[in-house]
Amino acid sequence: MKTNHIALIVAGGSGSRMGTNVAKQFLPFSKNTVLMHTIERFFEYNNSIKIYLVLPKSQISFWKELCQKYIFSIPLTLVEGGASRFQSVRNGIDAIKEKTGFVAIHDGVRPLISIKTIKDSFDKAQELGNAVVAVKPKDSLRVFSENNQTKSVDRNDFFIIQTPQTFELLALKNAYTTLELPFFTDDASVFDYHNQMIHLIEGKYDNIKITTPEDLILAKALLKMQKNN
Amino acid sequence: MKTNHIALIVAGGSGSRMGTNVAKQFLPFSKNTVLMHTIERFFEYNNSIKIYLVLPKSQISFWKELCQKYIFSIPLTLVEGGASRFQSVRNGIDAIKEKTGFVAIHDGVRPLISIKTIKDSFDKAQELGNAVVAVKPKDSLRVFSENNQTKSVDRNDFFIIQTPQTFELLALKNAYTTLELPFFTDDASVFDYHNQMIHLIEGKYDNIKITTPEDLILAKALLKMQKNN
Repeated sequence: MKTNHIALIVAGGSGSRMGTNVAKQFLPFSKNTVLMHTIERFFEYNNSIKIYLVLPKSQISFWKELCQKYIFSIPLTLVEGGASRFQSVRNGIDAIKEKTGFVAIHDGVRPLISIKTIKDSFDKAQELGNAVVAVKPKDSLRVFSENNQTKSVDRNDFFIIQTPQTFELLALKNAYTTLELPFFTDDASVFDYHNQMIHLIEGKYDNIKITTPEDLILAKALLKMQKNN
Repeated sequence: MKTNHIALIVAGGSGSRMGTNVAKQFLPFSKNTVLMHTIERFFEYNNSIKIYLVLPKSQISFWKELCQKYIFSIPLTLVEGGASRFQSVRNGIDAIKEKTGFVAIHDGVRPLISIKTIKDSFDKAQELGNAVVAVKPKDSLRVFSENNQTKSVDRNDFFIIQTPQTFELLALKNAYTTLELPFFTDDASVFDYHNQMIHLIEGKYDNIKITTPEDLILAKALLKMQKNN
């Protein structure tokens, strides 16, 4: 039986940190928008991938307008988001119709994800149950110690976590049966809570998350560089 | 008496990670090179600042050629670097002729440092003894735990450390009398070893360190953005 590859793309931004009225995932990027570019990368990896797109309810009609405007026709299932990223992911998981497979959860505002990293993520998850994309910190790090002081830590012990974070479907469903807790900053942290082993794979520094206007300019420069390579 | 402002610019790169024969600090940037642009920012902050530039011995004649080529004439004292960043900084400190003042130690390959951050750094160091530029992580972080596993940590407890790192001259001299230790990744970590309190100030995400070819492209895009603001 063929293994289902599923992409759960989560886009919850409102635009407030971008200083625009348009949410960052809808800003123009390359031939269409940030979010469409993200989705295209997964479709390019595997054109029979099942795509679930989680969007705030208030943005769904605007998304449909954009799809008409840009003649964007990659097949996907729209899912209404929740009040937090955790709840949006859970809504996405609840909407998945497949019974088995592997789910790559990915930020809608990381449009520069490489096809190779998507492939590595699914391959590693099929081998070991999950795969979380990470890079090593380039700068020194400090951590709060006692009395509001900070101390240096060895950056070689740390990883900067990106997406996709790819999980076997049933294990993912099981992990997300828990109540939301404040220290769930990503999907891997939900698995930690269940004492499940997380497998890191090496990502690329250009897989940036677009959260500020300067990130968008960086992403455009990085895209140009990807195309020249 | 006027307080001496001193900049100790450290540039030790060899070019190996850039995939070029030319060290990253000498690559073309804006009107001249990465390193010259860095130095110009400090001179723009205060044109009576005392600048010490630490370069590998093997690069000094090439630097002088570049100064002629670009008609670069900001006054500075050249210092020969050592075998490690720690030793280069120590050589720089040993070369400082001023008896008192504040020293901003800065990576030669962070050309986008803002004038405001340089000012904040000296102001805070004059008030509290030192000032180290930091930003908050944008992504989730994980750390090695036992058995080669990793676990998520609360990124709100962490800081990504940049330069300048600015210190009162005598305290800096004193800290650098120690032997080099493997966990000295920056100047603040040398102060930690002496149990001295480090004061963080908020920097900017665009103060990137140029270590790879993609960083240079990013830096050019960010420079354009700085000029448009």
